[in-house]
Amino acid sequence: MEWIESIKKVVGSEHVRTSSAHLLTYSYDATAGFQAMPDAVVSPGSTEDIRQIMEICRDHQVPLVPRGSGTNLAAGTAPTSGGVVLLFNRMNQILELDEDNLCIRVQPGVLTLDLCNFVEERGLFYPPDPSSMKISTIGGNVSENSGGLRGLKYGVTKDYVLGLTAVLPNGQVIKTGGKLAKDVAGYDLKALLVGAEGTLGVVTEILLKLIPKPEHQRTGIAYFQSLEESAATVSEIISERIIPATLEFMDRGTMDAVERFMNLGLPKDAEAMLLIEQDGEAGQVERDLAAMIDISVRNGAVITAVAETEEEAGQLKAGRRAALSALARKRPTTILEDATVPRSEIANMVRKIREIAERNQVEIHTFGHAGDGNLHPTCLTDIRNGEEMVRVERAFAEIFEAAIDLGGTITGEHGVGEMKSPYLQWKIGDEGIDLMKTIKQAIDPLNICNPGKMFAKANKPRVVVAHG
Amino acid sequence: MEWIESIKKVVGSEHVRTSSAHLLTYSYDATAGFQAMPDAVVSPGSTEDIRQIMEICRDHQVPLVPRGSGTNLAAGTAPTSGGVVLLFNRMNQILELDEDNLCIRVQPGVLTLDLCNFVEERGLFYPPDPSSMKISTIGGNVSENSGGLRGLKYGVTKDYVLGLTAVLPNGQVIKTGGKLAKDVAGYDLKALLVGAEGTLGVVTEILLKLIPKPEHQRTGIAYFQSLEESAATVSEIISERIIPATLEFMDRGTMDAVERFMNLGLPKDAEAMLLIEQDGEAGQVERDLAAMIDISVRNGAVITAVAETEEEAGQLKAGRRAALSALARKRPTTILEDATVPRSEIANMVRKIREIAERNQVEIHTFGHAGDGNLHPTCLTDIRNGEEMVRVERAFAEIFEAAIDLGGTITGEHGVGEMKSPYLQWKIGDEGIDLMKTIKQAIDPLNICNPGKMFAKANKPRVVVAHG
Repeated sequence: MEWIESIKKVVGSEHVRTSSAHLLTYSYDATAGFQAMPDAVVSPGSTEDIRQIMEICRDHQVPLVPRGSGTNLAAGTAPTSGGVVLLFNRMNQILELDEDNLCIRVQPGVLTLDLCNFVEERGLFYPPDPSSMKISTIGGNVSENSGGLRGLKYGVTKDYVLGLTAVLPNGQVIKTGGKLAKDVAGYDLKALLVGAEGTLGVVTEILLKLIPKPEHQRTGIAYFQSLEESAATVSEIISERIIPATLEFMDRGTMDAVERFMNLGLPKDAEAMLLIEQDGEAGQVERDLAAMIDISVRNGAVITAVAETEEEAGQLKAGRRAALSALARKRPTTILEDATVPRSEIANMVRKIREIAERNQVEIHTFGHAGDGNLHPTCLTDIRNGEEMVRVERAFAEIFEAAIDLGGTITGEHGVGEMKSPYLQWKIGDEGIDLMKTIKQAIDPLNICNPGKMFAKANKPRVVVAHG
Repeated sequence: MEWIESIKKVVGSEHVRTSSAHLLTYSYDATAGFQAMPDAVVSPGSTEDIRQIMEICRDHQVPLVPRGSGTNLAAGTAPTSGGVVLLFNRMNQILELDEDNLCIRVQPGVLTLDLCNFVEERGLFYPPDPSSMKISTIGGNVSENSGGLRGLKYGVTKDYVLGLTAVLPNGQVIKTGGKLAKDVAGYDLKALLVGAEGTLGVVTEILLKLIPKPEHQRTGIAYFQSLEESAATVSEIISERIIPATLEFMDRGTMDAVERFMNLGLPKDAEAMLLIEQDGEAGQVERDLAAMIDISVRNGAVITAVAETEEEAGQLKAGRRAALSALARKRPTTILEDATVPRSEIANMVRKIREIAERNQVEIHTFGHAGDGNLHPTCLTDIRNGEEMVRVERAFAEIFEAAIDLGGTITGEHGVGEMKSPYLQWKIGDEGIDLMKTIKQAIDPLNICNPGKMFAKANKPRVVVAHG
C-alpha cells in the first residue's frame, strides 16, 4: 500500500511492521471479544514523525490507533477499523525532572511504575496508581485519564497533567499548559485531550505535576459479616473527616477465590473486607489508622489487624492485589467492569450486583476502591458459550443501569472504548453525545483518530430492571 | 424590541430591566477602559428560563453575557457587543450539602465567601479563595476558573468542580459529571466549560467537591533586603518538600503604599516581604512554619515574626490584604495584571517588571502569590492621559512577553476576556487559537455567547524587548 511506503520514509522501514505475527500481536488489547487486524504497526521516534504520519493517514483516510501497553479493558486500543497501530516503545524517555517547580516532562512510552520509582527515589511522589501500573504507560494513562487505588485522597491522572504536546488531526502540533500552578489563557485544551482515548489527536509529550512524598504510611485490615457493616464503616470514616490514602473492598466471592489461590488464611465467614491505608505525617497517620480501626470495630468488624512492618503490610495487601488473578483462574474468560457510584451507595450497588448476577445466572464477584465508589464487578464466564454471553451482556447492562440509577457512571477509570460506547448515552444523555460529536467532528472531520471508540454506531436501549 | 418582549414573557417583565440607569450600571465590570451599554439586564429564575432566553437570543442573534458580581479584571463581563446581561441574583441558593459524598450543589449566584462560611461551619472546606471572594459569585469563579491565595497547596476552581448543568448555544441543557471521584464516561465536558468565560454556554448549576477543614493554621512573616533573598527562600521551602497553604509576596513599592495607607510599622528598608501560612495537623503545621522561618533567616531575612494568636495573624495579614486598596489610592486608574511564571522564575520576573516600568516611565508595583508564581504587577496611572496610556499598554505588552519568555503565561487567574485577547496567541500559538476557534465555531456558530471575549479581532504583534 502506498501509504505504508510513505510512513516507512518517515520513520525508517525497520520501524514499520506488517508481518502477520506483528499484526496479530497488536490486533487486540486486554478486552475479551474485540479483535481486528491492523494494516501496520508503527514505532515513531518523535513528535515530528507523528505529525507526518498523521498527515499521511489523513491523506489516505487511514485509521490511527495510539497504543501504550495494551492494558485497556474497554477495547479502546483494539484496532477495530484496521489502519495504523502507533507504538511508543521508541518514545519512552524521561526528558526533564524540575525539582524547583515540582514537575517532570516525559514521553508517552514511559512506564507508570518506572516514573513513580524515579521520582520517589528523589523524595517526590506521582500519586495516580492504576492497577496495571507495572506495565501501563503514562501515555495510556493520560489518554484514558487513569485512576487507581489512591484516587479518593490524591485524585486521578488529569489532576497531575500540567501540559501536553499533541498532534491534531489537521497535522498541527499544539503545546498546552506549562510549569504553572495557575494558567487560564484560553480553553483548557489539555483537559479535553486527557481521557479523550486518542479520538482527538495523539499526545506526544507530557508534563506532570509532582508532590512531596508522604513521609509515613500504615496499613490495616478489617473483616465484616455483612456488606452493610463495611459500607457503614466507609461512611463513618468520611463523616469523621478522615480521607484515607486507600480504602479497598473485596466481597465474599472474591475472598473465596483469593483464598483458594493463595491460602492466606482469610476468614471463611466474612462477607466483606476493607483494606485501609493512610499516609502523611507520622503522628497523623497513627491517629487516623487507629480511628479507622475503631470505626470498623464499632460497626461490627469481626477481625481487624494493623501491620507493624512493611512485610506485614505486604501480607495484608497481598489478598487485594491478587483479587483479579485469583478470580481469572476460575473460568476461561474474565470481564472486569468498573461501574462507579457515589460513595454513599456502595452497599446498595454491591447488593444490586449480586441480585443481577443471580437473576441472570452468571458468576460475578466484586472488589474495588470503596473510598471513591469505584467498584470492579468481575464476571467469570466463557466467551465461547454464546448462550451464556447473552446473559453476561444483559447482566452488565443491568449493572450499568443500576449504577446510573444510583447517581453513578458506566466507567470510573477504564474508559469507554468500543465496548462501552453503546452505553455512554445512558450516562451523558443525547445532549452530551451531541456535544461530544460536535467537538469530534470539528476537530477530526475525517474520523482518522481511533475511529469507532467512544462513539457508538447505535445506543443500547435502556434495560428495564425489576428493582428489588 | 421584539426579543425583549419575548424574554419578558419568559421571566416576567419585573425581571427585565431596560432603564438607562440599569443599563449604565451593567455597562462595565472591574476593568478600566471597557464600557458599552447592553440592551437589557435580565434576571432569570431557573435553568429553563435560561434555556428559553438562549433560544430567543439565538433566533434574534442577540449577544448573551453572563455576569456574576462584575469583579472581572479582563473585561470578561463587560457587554462590549451589547445584548443581554444575564444576572444570577435570583439563582443564588445552596441546593444541597451532601456530607456523605463531601460535595455541595449550588446555583451560580451564591457568593464565594457565603459558600466557604457555610461549609466551614460544618467542618468542611472549599479551598479556592480569589481575593474578590467577599463579593464574587461561584458562577463567576467557575466561568473564570478562579485561583486565589491557596492555589499552590489546594489548586484552583477547576479542581473542585465535580459536575455542571449548562445551557448550550443550541438550546440544549447538558448535565455533566456527578458525585463521583472518578468518571471517565466521555470527554471531560465540564473541564471545557470551566474557564470558558461564558463563550460556550451558560452554567446554571454547580456541584463542588469539598474536603475536611484543616484543624490548625499558623501565620508568619519575613522581610528581606533583596528580591533574590525572598525568591531563594521560596525555592528552598519547596526543595525542602514543604507545600505551604499560602506564600504571598509584596515588593517595596507595594509595602510603601501600604505603610502610607495603614501605618502598620512595616520596615522601611525591606525590598520584599513573604507572608507564610501553613494549615493541617497541628504538629506538622508547627514544624513546617518553624522550618520556613528558619529557611527565611538562612536566606537573609532581616525581620521575621510568627503570630501567636488569631488576632496577631490578622495583623500580619492586614498589609497583604490591603495591598490593592493601598496602591489604588495613589492614582486615578489602577490596572491589576496577573502574568504568571514558573515558581523558580519569580525573582527574574519581578526584576524584569521593574526594568520595564522604568524604561516606559510608568509606575508599577508587584505583589502576588509567590508559591505558585502568580504575580500581580499593578500599574498606577490615569486613563484620561492618552500619552501615558500608550506607555502603560507598551509596558504590559513587554510584561506579557517577559512572562512567556520565562515559561509563563499572560494570565494565571484573571482570565483573557476582551482586554487580553490580543495577547492570547503569544501563549498558545496559532495552533492553539485555531483549535479554540474550531471548538467555539462548532458549539456557538452564531457567536451568541459572550462575543468578543477570548477571541481577538487581531493579535498584537510581539514586542521586541531589549533583554537586560
